[in-house]
Amino acid sequence: MVKRTFTILGGDLRSLKLTDLIREDGHIVNIFGFDSYDTASEIGISIESQKQDLGENHELESIIQGVDVVIGPLPCSNDNETINAPFHSKKIYINDVFKVMGKSQLFLAGKISSKIAHLAEVYNVYTIDILNREEMAVLNAIPTAEGALQIAMEEMQITLHDCNALVMGFGRVGKILGKMLHSLGANTFIEARKYSDIAWIKSYSYKPVLINDLEKHLPYMDVVFNTVPAMVLDEKRLDKLHKNCLIIDLASKPGGVDFEKAKALGLKVNWALSLPGKVAPITAAKFIKDTTYNILEELGV
Amino acid sequence: MVKRTFTILGGDLRSLKLTDLIREDGHIVNIFGFDSYDTASEIGISIESQKQDLGENHELESIIQGVDVVIGPLPCSNDNETINAPFHSKKIYINDVFKVMGKSQLFLAGKISSKIAHLAEVYNVYTIDILNREEMAVLNAIPTAEGALQIAMEEMQITLHDCNALVMGFGRVGKILGKMLHSLGANTFIEARKYSDIAWIKSYSYKPVLINDLEKHLPYMDVVFNTVPAMVLDEKRLDKLHKNCLIIDLASKPGGVDFEKAKALGLKVNWALSLPGKVAPITAAKFIKDTTYNILEELGV
Amino acid sequence: MVKRTFTILGGDLRSLKLTDLIREDGHIVNIFGFDSYDTASEIGISIESQKQDLGENHELESIIQGVDVVIGPLPCSNDNETINAPFHSKKIYINDVFKVMGKSQLFLAGKISSKIAHLAEVYNVYTIDILNREEMAVLNAIPTAEGALQIAMEEMQITLHDCNALVMGFGRVGKILGKMLHSLGANTFIEARKYSDIAWIKSYSYKPVLINDLEKHLPYMDVVFNTVPAMVLDEKRLDKLHKNCLIIDLASKPGGVDFEKAKALGLKVNWALSLPGKVAPITAAKFIKDTTYNILEELGV
Amino acid sequence: MVKRTFTILGGDLRSLKLTDLIREDGHIVNIFGFDSYDTASEIGISIESQKQDLGENHELESIIQGVDVVIGPLPCSNDNETINAPFHSKKIYINDVFKVMGKSQLFLAGKISSKIAHLAEVYNVYTIDILNREEMAVLNAIPTAEGALQIAMEEMQITLHDCNALVMGFGRVGKILGKMLHSLGANTFIEARKYSDIAWIKSYSYKPVLINDLEKHLPYMDVVFNTVPAMVLDEKRLDKLHKNCLIIDLASKPGGVDFEKAKALGLKVNWALSLPGKVAPITAAKFIKDTTYNILEELGV
Repeated sequence: MVKRTFTILGGDLRSLKLTDLIREDGHIVNIFGFDSYDTASEIGISIESQKQDLGENHELESIIQGVDVVIGPLPCSNDNETINAPFHSKKIYINDVFKVMGKSQLFLAGKISSKIAHLAEVYNVYTIDILNREEMAVLNAIPTAEGALQIAMEEMQITLHDCNALVMGFGRVGKILGKMLHSLGANTFIEARKYSDIAWIKSYSYKPVLINDLEKHLPYMDVVFNTVPAMVLDEKRLDKLHKNCLIIDLASKPGGVDFEKAKALGLKVNWALSLPGKVAPITAAKFIKDTTYNILEELGV
Repeated sequence: MVKRTFTILGGDLRSLKLTDLIREDGHIVNIFGFDSYDTASEIGISIESQKQDLGENHELESIIQGVDVVIGPLPCSNDNETINAPFHSKKIYINDVFKVMGKSQLFLAGKISSKIAHLAEVYNVYTIDILNREEMAVLNAIPTAEGALQIAMEEMQITLHDCNALVMGFGRVGKILGKMLHSLGANTFIEARKYSDIAWIKSYSYKPVLINDLEKHLPYMDVVFNTVPAMVLDEKRLDKLHKNCLIIDLASKPGGVDFEKAKALGLKVNWALSLPGKVAPITAAKFIKDTTYNILEELGV
Repeated sequence: MVKRTFTILGGDLRSLKLTDLIREDGHIVNIFGFDSYDTASEIGISIESQKQDLGENHELESIIQGVDVVIGPLPCSNDNETINAPFHSKKIYINDVFKVMGKSQLFLAGKISSKIAHLAEVYNVYTIDILNREEMAVLNAIPTAEGALQIAMEEMQITLHDCNALVMGFGRVGKILGKMLHSLGANTFIEARKYSDIAWIKSYSYKPVLINDLEKHLPYMDVVFNTVPAMVLDEKRLDKLHKNCLIIDLASKPGGVDFEKAKALGLKVNWALSLPGKVAPITAAKFIKDTTYNILEELGV
Repeated sequence: MVKRTFTILGGDLRSLKLTDLIREDGHIVNIFGFDSYDTASEIGISIESQKQDLGENHELESIIQGVDVVIGPLPCSNDNETINAPFHSKKIYINDVFKVMGKSQLFLAGKISSKIAHLAEVYNVYTIDILNREEMAVLNAIPTAEGALQIAMEEMQITLHDCNALVMGFGRVGKILGKMLHSLGANTFIEARKYSDIAWIKSYSYKPVLINDLEKHLPYMDVVFNTVPAMVLDEKRLDKLHKNCLIIDLASKPGGVDFEKAKALGLKVNWALSLPGKVAPITAAKFIKDTTYNILEELGV
């Protein structure tokens, strides 16, 4: 592999770990945006980087100029103006970053909003949204599904083995979560709308539930995992659930559960977002690395 | 379910079994195109139908008129002129069938060629190709994959358990075959071209082989299953295989193996086509029934 | 099934749930030993029993006399004198229980010590230790294994999927834990001493590690689960582990890890005991019920 | 590993393959008992051995003297007098073999009868029956189970996927066959007598059938695999089966099926014996090698 230079810019534990992982592959990696990060703290990420590496003594410009790739955080920004950098004491403005980037450099990050994309265009910076990459989305479904299992194990007083578990949706997370539940011995019901998905669900020996038949299955479920980003667990359906049924909503905002109604019914709902970075930051960093390499491979950089 | 009337027209054992299955659900089913079928023969399909039902004493017109659905064979025809009816002594012309069909009737069959589709248009007959239905294609991948396993078991002098098995392609058959091989304990390598497929393959714990890395894995394989309808096992790649490696080509014509070269190299190649009807005609009939019902459900017939 | 009468005596949440489960099957169940249990509390066990049932207003004698079976707690006692009854304000002496039991009555409980067994003999009471039943031990391995997975998920910053996990021992917990890890996609190494166990481990497609080869695998492990009740992770072996490796010891006292040495090495060790009652009390109660019924079936009671 | 010398004596394809496998590990191996074996024949075993190795030009004595281990066939003999040597034109008398063996030499073979064992004692020859080794029995269950699947696939007109399959007995073959059926998507019922086996069956998510409940499940089965060496499928039970149900009897003589009654009922029965040598001779040879090495390791030879 060609030896390349990277600058990791801001982000959370995943960015720190990513630094180590890319260095281990023999590349040169700068890191910036961690001046308030306490390397002595017990957070489990083994950060080999020296304190002086973490952004205190560097100018943004010097650390970006000349590198092949700048890797921003996932998500890139929370305000469309500054880089998402929870471990940095000062603000890092996105346009300060773009200003110093040249035409041959690549800017990668997660959730690059249309506003940021527009800014990049203005500054003539080439950006790629890592989270738009299909392989990244597939890989992220693994820690998401494991995190969902962990929550279910923590919240339920029965084993997943031999419980009745319903997964709503058969997309990326639904597929992997269904596989894991089934293989742990749960009676795994998967809801889908398309006949072809029902065929796939049968082929994997899960129990298919066509959306039209959903309501007759709801009363028997011990846990329902929603992966559909639409109001699928509305009042009418929540009403059918057993009062001890646990609901784990994995759908991004606005979620797929009528939370108020669920509360009124006394149902326990766990809305679990951004699981990969929370339950498995090291694995998540590895997936970012792999996807970054794929992008570079494809670009022939 | 609404009680409906069907006419099964021509076809092989699957059509006979389909007749029984639809009748068991309480519908009325005519069958035509089996006048030379020997009900006494030992073919394992339990045909409940009486000899007189099988098409000798009926006029085509009387048996089609008034029914809701006509189900032709899979494939519909081998010559674009007559219905594929291996158990019938006379020819059944497709235009004779279309001639007597009315506007409110539905004609289902497999592989309706553009020529037949054109004919249907001329006669104003509404046709649907069952094999174009995604759920049918997915379901058919199950007997295809099992049939491939059966061939591998028959031809190999080692167990699938702990053998090195490579599946080329991660489409419908690749996915299901990969699952089966892995779960039987084969070291299951799956070749794919897209990074997202590689991610899926990892998520299922199979061993991903990016197409670029294919050749370095080939020498260690005990069996290679091809599912890609393109010349993927060409001379160069065949040359890399161990002489005892078995090749099972599941790709439809023209196949994905350079058969002549393989023969010259002394490699054993098994080109296995149309497995569902051969290895599991009863299951295949059930899938045709399910897909037919899905079509009727969607049409609101 | 014959309608029988039971008295549940002391114990924890499992005993409460057991009461409900046996009642649901149509039997008569008394319960005693929960006078300080707050039914209003949010502990998730749906206790249908009325407050007055829980032992305040009853005499021990009246509640035991005439019932077919008395089911004590698991474990039966912590001091060999009184029934283990954490939710009761007064002491329940074992000899007070045995005194009022007749020859035709059966006393079931977990971990009936030799001292208690001797007492039972003195009072001519027929006892069976539920935890000595092989089926109970097998079933309890399910929540034990799930609890171990939950701890691993909580403590690790990587996914179980694709991690290197070692299970020491291939007994009941080792078998079920190995299956679960493998099916979640962990690279599952299982250590065993007997060649026949190695053969079983191969047959399930886990990676066998003969005890003699253990040390060369240790440095690569992300998590080690010990199920062997002997000092298997001694100083010499702990030294081989990576500093981020998590150790989960499932072996009952005195455990299988040199805890002090592990601490000195900075290794994270989690000694997880009595998981079934902690992680899945309702499932555990169901297993007690099933085993109780099996015992009665065998006795022809 | 210490370099050792072996003589392979008689046997079938497995013995030929065993010769190659042990040579590949760097040991010296003589082979005797294949003088009529046609190396040019297309039997798929790649026999590297030269024709002159196969026993024509050697004296039994010279080929045995001085070697560490003599490996006879599985089974050792069919008549208790001569070595089982289907590819040899002359008889090899067991006592001629034992006569020339010294005290420090080891004789391994399969099914060493009490008569042969007695003879060995007379000649002061140390023998070990490979088939009595637990790991060999476990490993052999793998090709046995695969062979049973192959037969089922060949004989049935439905897929194993989603069929109703019953395995009688939960010993070595029952466990591995159950795992394979379940993972291929069969509705896998396993019959057992012991409550602890029922618990194991549940833990693996197969459907347990206590022997007492067997008869109510029989009418729904598509295939029954018997592994129990006792008359478990007697007239009364055969009567309950559907006429299309396939029976595969894996139990050694006298089998576990009332064959005459089954024939009278028109049931298809396949009595499948000695599957490992038939369906996977190379794998079987590898297992013999592994077990041989284990024996030598244990003996410290």
